[in-house]
Amino acid sequence: MAVDPRPLRVVDSSDEHLEETRVEGARVYDGALLDVRRDVVRLPDDTTTIREYIVHPGAVLVIPVLADGRFVVERQFRYPLHRVFLEFPAGKLDAGESPLATAQRELKEETGYIAERWTRLGLIHPTVSYSTEAIEIFIADDLTHVGRKLDDGEFLDVTEMTGTALFAALDAGELTDAKTVAALLMYSRKRGGP
Amino acid sequence: MAVDPRPLRVVDSSDEHLEETRVEGARVYDGALLDVRRDVVRLPDDTTTIREYIVHPGAVLVIPVLADGRFVVERQFRYPLHRVFLEFPAGKLDAGESPLATAQRELKEETGYIAERWTRLGLIHPTVSYSTEAIEIFIADDLTHVGRKLDDGEFLDVTEMTGTALFAALDAGELTDAKTVAALLMYSRKRGGP
Repeated sequence: MAVDPRPLRVVDSSDEHLEETRVEGARVYDGALLDVRRDVVRLPDDTTTIREYIVHPGAVLVIPVLADGRFVVERQFRYPLHRVFLEFPAGKLDAGESPLATAQRELKEETGYIAERWTRLGLIHPTVSYSTEAIEIFIADDLTHVGRKLDDGEFLDVTEMTGTALFAALDAGELTDAKTVAALLMYSRKRGGP
Repeated sequence: MAVDPRPLRVVDSSDEHLEETRVEGARVYDGALLDVRRDVVRLPDDTTTIREYIVHPGAVLVIPVLADGRFVVERQFRYPLHRVFLEFPAGKLDAGESPLATAQRELKEETGYIAERWTRLGLIHPTVSYSTEAIEIFIADDLTHVGRKLDDGEFLDVTEMTGTALFAALDAGELTDAKTVAALLMYSRKRGGP
């Protein structure tokens, strides 16, 4: 079961005046990572325009919570922006993989932790204007460290931070990864902030 | 002045063990919206891999606050996900345009409001793994409605919501646009939540 990127607020009759419909389209780039589409679409006023976007398999983000309340976080170099980002563990779904299985796999591979208890926190869409990507967010509790096994070509540092330190990093402009910021708010709504 | 997507935490000596360096690369798709690159990069262990990503001009998000504390928000159909999203006003920088000028232009064009007072709230990166996009976030206060003028091919509804209603939409899974969720947290950190 893949991430369903459209679980709520699909177009209903009250949204018909906003809806765009596909006339034709094609894959314009099929890369190692990116699947790029270009569609001709009909707009609400019956004119047509071009929409270009990435087709993405879906992803997960994991909020791993240690017994003392600290979070397991990563520092990872992100090539497009050529700098290191502070992020919660995350990763893409493999073909046929469920979001929960992806979350469990990525947490173990990237941080070396397994979790006894998993809670689904919600769904976010990082780039609604040009990607189909949806990210399922999970909380991982009751962690045990068993040793990590990174993918080939994957390099990242794992560290632990308190909620207070994470919010301080946000306030200082040092935490800018949107999925991590969004997840931090959703977590605080559910379990309380620092 | 464009959005500088790398204002903080550029690679320093402590991050050298994570850094990836470009060996060669090319633009593999040059569309109406998307500029797609494919680079061969050298990894920290001296092996090479492929990185594919979107080169993006940068964007802004505006949090427009009415005198009674309500927010001006949009409901916009997003073609890649084929549904309507609840979002703060946002848009891409035109060539040579400053983020503040973009914010003022987009707010007026999309919602019909102009603002007397502008406050920069921070920066987020929506898709660190495959886009250079950075979004500057602004708060717009002291609003006056002067009438909107949408771009050709742009259709969206404008509405007003309390902070309480926005958080309720988040808790209900109806607010999933990551930039809007992240901006809501940053705003609450600065001015207090509901």
